[in-house]
Amino acid sequence: MAEREEARRKRAGALLSEHKLDALLVTNLHNVRYLSGFTGSNAQILLLRDGSARLLTDPRYDAQSRQETNCPIEIVKGPLFKAAAKAIGRVKVRRVGFEAASTPWATWKALDNALPARADLRASDGLVEGLRQIKDATEIELIRSSCALNSQALEKALMCFRPSMLETELAAEIDYASRRAGASGPAFDTIVASGAHAALPHAQPRAKAIQKGILLIDMGAFRSGYASDMTRTVHSGPAGVRFRRMYRAVLEAQLAAVDAVRDGATTKSVDRAARRVLHAYDLDEHFTHSTGHGLGLEIHERPRIGKTDKTRLAAGMAITIEPGIYLEGWGGIRIEDTVVVTRNGCEILTPTSKELREF
Amino acid sequence: MAEREEARRKRAGALLSEHKLDALLVTNLHNVRYLSGFTGSNAQILLLRDGSARLLTDPRYDAQSRQETNCPIEIVKGPLFKAAAKAIGRVKVRRVGFEAASTPWATWKALDNALPARADLRASDGLVEGLRQIKDATEIELIRSSCALNSQALEKALMCFRPSMLETELAAEIDYASRRAGASGPAFDTIVASGAHAALPHAQPRAKAIQKGILLIDMGAFRSGYASDMTRTVHSGPAGVRFRRMYRAVLEAQLAAVDAVRDGATTKSVDRAARRVLHAYDLDEHFTHSTGHGLGLEIHERPRIGKTDKTRLAAGMAITIEPGIYLEGWGGIRIEDTVVVTRNGCEILTPTSKELREF
Repeated sequence: MAEREEARRKRAGALLSEHKLDALLVTNLHNVRYLSGFTGSNAQILLLRDGSARLLTDPRYDAQSRQETNCPIEIVKGPLFKAAAKAIGRVKVRRVGFEAASTPWATWKALDNALPARADLRASDGLVEGLRQIKDATEIELIRSSCALNSQALEKALMCFRPSMLETELAAEIDYASRRAGASGPAFDTIVASGAHAALPHAQPRAKAIQKGILLIDMGAFRSGYASDMTRTVHSGPAGVRFRRMYRAVLEAQLAAVDAVRDGATTKSVDRAARRVLHAYDLDEHFTHSTGHGLGLEIHERPRIGKTDKTRLAAGMAITIEPGIYLEGWGGIRIEDTVVVTRNGCEILTPTSKELREF
Repeated sequence: MAEREEARRKRAGALLSEHKLDALLVTNLHNVRYLSGFTGSNAQILLLRDGSARLLTDPRYDAQSRQETNCPIEIVKGPLFKAAAKAIGRVKVRRVGFEAASTPWATWKALDNALPARADLRASDGLVEGLRQIKDATEIELIRSSCALNSQALEKALMCFRPSMLETELAAEIDYASRRAGASGPAFDTIVASGAHAALPHAQPRAKAIQKGILLIDMGAFRSGYASDMTRTVHSGPAGVRFRRMYRAVLEAQLAAVDAVRDGATTKSVDRAARRVLHAYDLDEHFTHSTGHGLGLEIHERPRIGKTDKTRLAAGMAITIEPGIYLEGWGGIRIEDTVVVTRNGCEILTPTSKELREF
């Protein structure tokens, strides 16, 4: 494993000159993990140069960091940013990038104050995230295995379903089944929303009995560090004509978007494919979010798949495809798979069927 | 509930002039929740002025925001920061604070670029966090109830314990019991660390059978938005002399620190009380973190209770007291309660016994 991270540091280091940088202060914990293997989440700065790197962390992570990474480590008592500034001073670099999207202004300011006069902080963004977009074969296997676990957990949890069950109880069963199947935890707060509550795309489960009708479940797991993400909308009791029509519309939109995924396609063309189907059903105004997002070490990564996103998909990207419609007072329907982009299309990693399920 | 948040907005608004601000852009999601009741977690800016406030969010949160807050709402398509800049332009304020500790540099820059020339962004910090430190009676009840649930969940989970159980399995039982008891989720990744693995203060549960010997469990729940936090170190099988001595040392340190808590005491005096006991046992060098932290809407809030922290404790603060010792190759012991500061001392909110437990 250590070789993998070493190779990544090499690749990232080689990009520095392209970004007009002599060094990069990697502070985003997922980027640090990607480049070093270190999974600490409270104290980490990786000082990356072309051909070398140094991980700074604090005494709580002394043993753990040595177990997890082969990158040179400095255990720091006191503020990490001061130690980072000193390390920069020692190597005498000038143009030092920092991760502008995740570095709080106050940290930037403190760093800037502590830095030797020679060095100059430059906002940099997406250098490591850009590399992380394309998953290698091992990462794809980890995401596949996370998706498999997630789908198993859904089936296990649905087996516990009883009519008087609360939304919160079903959510607890889902998370438990997922942990029992080997997840380190949920990738986000599990959504279980029944009836009109499903009209909230980010609904939180309530301590309320699941009603007959719409039941929307959005769930994801972390397994070996990698995320999965899936939404299914099922129907408790027999579904009526209106729900069936709506469900067909969302499913067709989802399939059309999946169909549009391929190496070289723009993300907005994938989004448009979903939106076009919903437009034909006169439902596009109820599709109030984007079609999907990348995932990996984080549940939301690059690329974003929305109306105005111009990224070109590339083989190895792992993304979600999740169109949905939301009608206040009625409810919502969302159908979501995790897929991986391939040369000629994509492979769906979520094994759960998307057929309308009444139970 | 809405009145409570309205009163908080009033209190926060009244502090602006003291901080030399005409308005504050509240972006930290916990601060936004505290001031508005809105629990959305992906898109929120609260523009706070003395006597008025405006919540900006995106279409996904349209229905939810109207359900949760009585604060005026603006649903924004496109970047929130641009809408915030426009709103600032409309009200013609000059000195606009932003939350420097949680605003990423890139967001600050984008805001700064979008802002009318008249307005001037100023780093501000801790205005809302300062208010959040002191819990009102309702908040203390919520934390108490979160602690009660957390302790119940530990007992339930320990009842499932069997000799061949994996660390990850026990962690899953803990989280499940916690959810079944009404938690919305864990307050952090549950730690279950047995044997030498307990030497990592932030150990992640492994898919390894729990060995005879040390078993350290650090767990917390969110219930109705509020966190609890507890650590217990138990012993699987009969404990030997060395463990007993170590346990006594940590327990005495914990009790000494709890004893030092009172309205008006400095946080470092509480930390010192724990460290002094461990010093007498010649174990202080193995106590590698601080004694505790505030908690509430977040699992880590102000104040920090460490060697150099000079905050004066005040009645209504909810904090953890959690000294620990860590010896590589041997293991670790940590004992942690959640307590609330009172006029004359503190009240321990964690009902679980701290007697040495062998099972």
